[in-house]
Amino acid sequence: MTGLLTDLYQLTMAAGYFEAGKAQESAVFELFFRRLPRYRNFVLSAGLAQAVSYLQSLHFEPEELRYLRTLPQFRKVAPEFFDFLAKLRFTGDVFAMPEGTPIFANEPFLTIRAPLIEAQLVETYLLATIGFQSLIATKAARMVEVAHGRYVVDFGTRRAHSPEAGVLAGRAAYIGGCIGTSNTETGFRYGVPVFGTAAHSWVQAFPDERDAYARLQQLLGDATVYLIDTYDTREGARHAAALGRPLWGVRLDSGNLVELAWAVRKILDEAGLTDAKIMATSDLNEYKILEFAAADVPIDVFGVGTDLATSTDSPNIGVIYKLVQLEGRFTAKFSEDKQTMPGSKQVFRFADHDVIACDWECLGCGPTEPLARALLRPVMLKGELAVPVPDAVAARKNAAENLSHLPAATRSLFDNEQQYRIDYSRPLLSLYDQVQDENRILRHRHST
Amino acid sequence: MTGLLTDLYQLTMAAGYFEAGKAQESAVFELFFRRLPRYRNFVLSAGLAQAVSYLQSLHFEPEELRYLRTLPQFRKVAPEFFDFLAKLRFTGDVFAMPEGTPIFANEPFLTIRAPLIEAQLVETYLLATIGFQSLIATKAARMVEVAHGRYVVDFGTRRAHSPEAGVLAGRAAYIGGCIGTSNTETGFRYGVPVFGTAAHSWVQAFPDERDAYARLQQLLGDATVYLIDTYDTREGARHAAALGRPLWGVRLDSGNLVELAWAVRKILDEAGLTDAKIMATSDLNEYKILEFAAADVPIDVFGVGTDLATSTDSPNIGVIYKLVQLEGRFTAKFSEDKQTMPGSKQVFRFADHDVIACDWECLGCGPTEPLARALLRPVMLKGELAVPVPDAVAARKNAAENLSHLPAATRSLFDNEQQYRIDYSRPLLSLYDQVQDENRILRHRHST
Repeated sequence: MTGLLTDLYQLTMAAGYFEAGKAQESAVFELFFRRLPRYRNFVLSAGLAQAVSYLQSLHFEPEELRYLRTLPQFRKVAPEFFDFLAKLRFTGDVFAMPEGTPIFANEPFLTIRAPLIEAQLVETYLLATIGFQSLIATKAARMVEVAHGRYVVDFGTRRAHSPEAGVLAGRAAYIGGCIGTSNTETGFRYGVPVFGTAAHSWVQAFPDERDAYARLQQLLGDATVYLIDTYDTREGARHAAALGRPLWGVRLDSGNLVELAWAVRKILDEAGLTDAKIMATSDLNEYKILEFAAADVPIDVFGVGTDLATSTDSPNIGVIYKLVQLEGRFTAKFSEDKQTMPGSKQVFRFADHDVIACDWECLGCGPTEPLARALLRPVMLKGELAVPVPDAVAARKNAAENLSHLPAATRSLFDNEQQYRIDYSRPLLSLYDQVQDENRILRHRHST
Repeated sequence: MTGLLTDLYQLTMAAGYFEAGKAQESAVFELFFRRLPRYRNFVLSAGLAQAVSYLQSLHFEPEELRYLRTLPQFRKVAPEFFDFLAKLRFTGDVFAMPEGTPIFANEPFLTIRAPLIEAQLVETYLLATIGFQSLIATKAARMVEVAHGRYVVDFGTRRAHSPEAGVLAGRAAYIGGCIGTSNTETGFRYGVPVFGTAAHSWVQAFPDERDAYARLQQLLGDATVYLIDTYDTREGARHAAALGRPLWGVRLDSGNLVELAWAVRKILDEAGLTDAKIMATSDLNEYKILEFAAADVPIDVFGVGTDLATSTDSPNIGVIYKLVQLEGRFTAKFSEDKQTMPGSKQVFRFADHDVIACDWECLGCGPTEPLARALLRPVMLKGELAVPVPDAVAARKNAAENLSHLPAATRSLFDNEQQYRIDYSRPLLSLYDQVQDENRILRHRHST
């Protein structure tokens, strides 16, 4: 993966560290978010596998370095820096929560320990791939939660923020609990199950809807899904019913889905097709799914596009990446509204709350303590994989297991008063005070 | 580019067309949206260059075809279909509005004339790349409009929906009027100017803020931008001022930007650095920029991240792709809430309104008629480029020129009553009635 896919300032900072002789200083950066995204009570982590692929393949091509040297920002930079970049590979350690872990504000969920210059360069890519997939996995988990056992499938590629975002959204939606995606490349690359129905243009491509349906049945057999709204949904349902088996079912894509689902169910049942399924599409989201499921509307599968692939009601997550330790020195940010906690950390998950602690602490380990799991685990050591990264299938299983243990209030679609409890350990709070004091003394000394 | 980056149903439809002997039928599809995105009075088209690259390179690799053959949906499909896909290339014509054209609801802005099977397969990719870039170019244009001559730069890659979305967002933001992007890959690939400042971790990497600033100045000279909020913004400004020239300016990234901008401006001016610029970042968007500009707050450059790269207040656009003609037969969709107009079209732009017409019409051509431009122009013919696609620099110029001719109400940030006027030509309206009648007769005949 190209090293150029980063913000320019990462590269100028890298040049600065190189010239200041700080390139190889041992840095620890942590990835976290300060606040949950709007309308979210948890975030489901996803994207680690792509972050690791990036770290494993990070490098600069000669023509990329030639480009950098043409930029005014590098006019004063020594040629040795570009020789250094030409050989640069990621040689650091990565600790991370597995994909499919529910996470909360201020919990570091990925830690990079690496030479300062490497750790700096990778920030932008890590934020973009992990932030985005976590956003989509979270959105999917919300839909699956309220679908109460009905299936949800991702049909959002065409609305995703670029074709590649569609591929990754399909992966993340699957991790979040969807049964699969319409994105064929997602299936090919990541082994995610792929699904599809038929197009309006298919129906239009034949002089009569019934010809189009008969052809489709011949082609797809028991995988046939008739799209019945091109001309008139009830008539489409009657045409589908007339053809009988084999079929999987029908898809509704416009009109009043509640009324139409009942009407179409009746038409199919009266034709003896009681096992034919009804899929609904058309601007769905978790709020509408909740209503349909609560009213027990006869829809068996929800195909969700736009709202899933762009997380429409909450399209971004403020994942940040902060230096917490450098050459053993603890660092933090004390700006008015953007403080960070110093030092490398670990997150311990107890039955009903989490504790953010220093990385040397061991909570829930003593014989009389309540049980806890340390969530950050080694992923890469010295630039090499420590353990294979679980695939999307394993991540989806992990997510389902983890989500089932969250309190009902946390799984709710709506903002709630009872936020999931996150504590800081005493040693971490002491460290914060200590670093803040040191910083005050240092600044006072320099300004007098 | 891989043919797999599409919805599975496009591939099953393709198999169906192949088996029905319809693969080579001559189809016309049009790309448009039914409604403007939420909070938008116009959309600025972008993404055509990537759509064309995709069409030029579309193909299937042998291992991709082997994957398809493992899918249950292709169990009954003849092996000849996969041989056909192995040789498939895009051989059609493309007509499109140039990037940087303001567009409105129901106006086709890209037309594909191609064998049915090719036209079908490319839908998903075209929608995703053009829809997304148009969304971001539009968002950028709104910010640039209200910045009233102050600069806007894209810093959004880390919040984009995947790293690749960040690259394309940088390109689209530039077309929309930003002066450039922080995304280095965007600069490398598309010749977009790249910008950057410094990181908080840079400041933290030195024992004292002043050491960090001195080193930065040494590195960047007159491109130096001090990030002054790591510890205390006013103190940071004093540290920057003490170092004097050379510098470009300072960046504010937290706190009350209005108060801080005035305070920092005073500190810089009192040090004689009246030409040092102030850049502001931190959750900006067009609404905040409007307030800052209206109050004449001394901010010279707005660095916008999240809201720009994800178009937060309106993160999706319902671009659709509809079959309007097949083997000379006009097609349309008559479903309850999703009608389409039949036949291949042209859009004519007059001084103060547009007319959507049949593609054979020529409006504004007569000697006594008001002047009009035909907006859809040939881009590819028989799979080959008809003319070189203008680059991002040309698209940005085109956008600025076009936007300057829009009515003020249309350029307003807010929903307004006076929507830009779009008319349909009489021949197009007659065609709609005719196709609807034919369709009613046909359906009546079949159902009796």
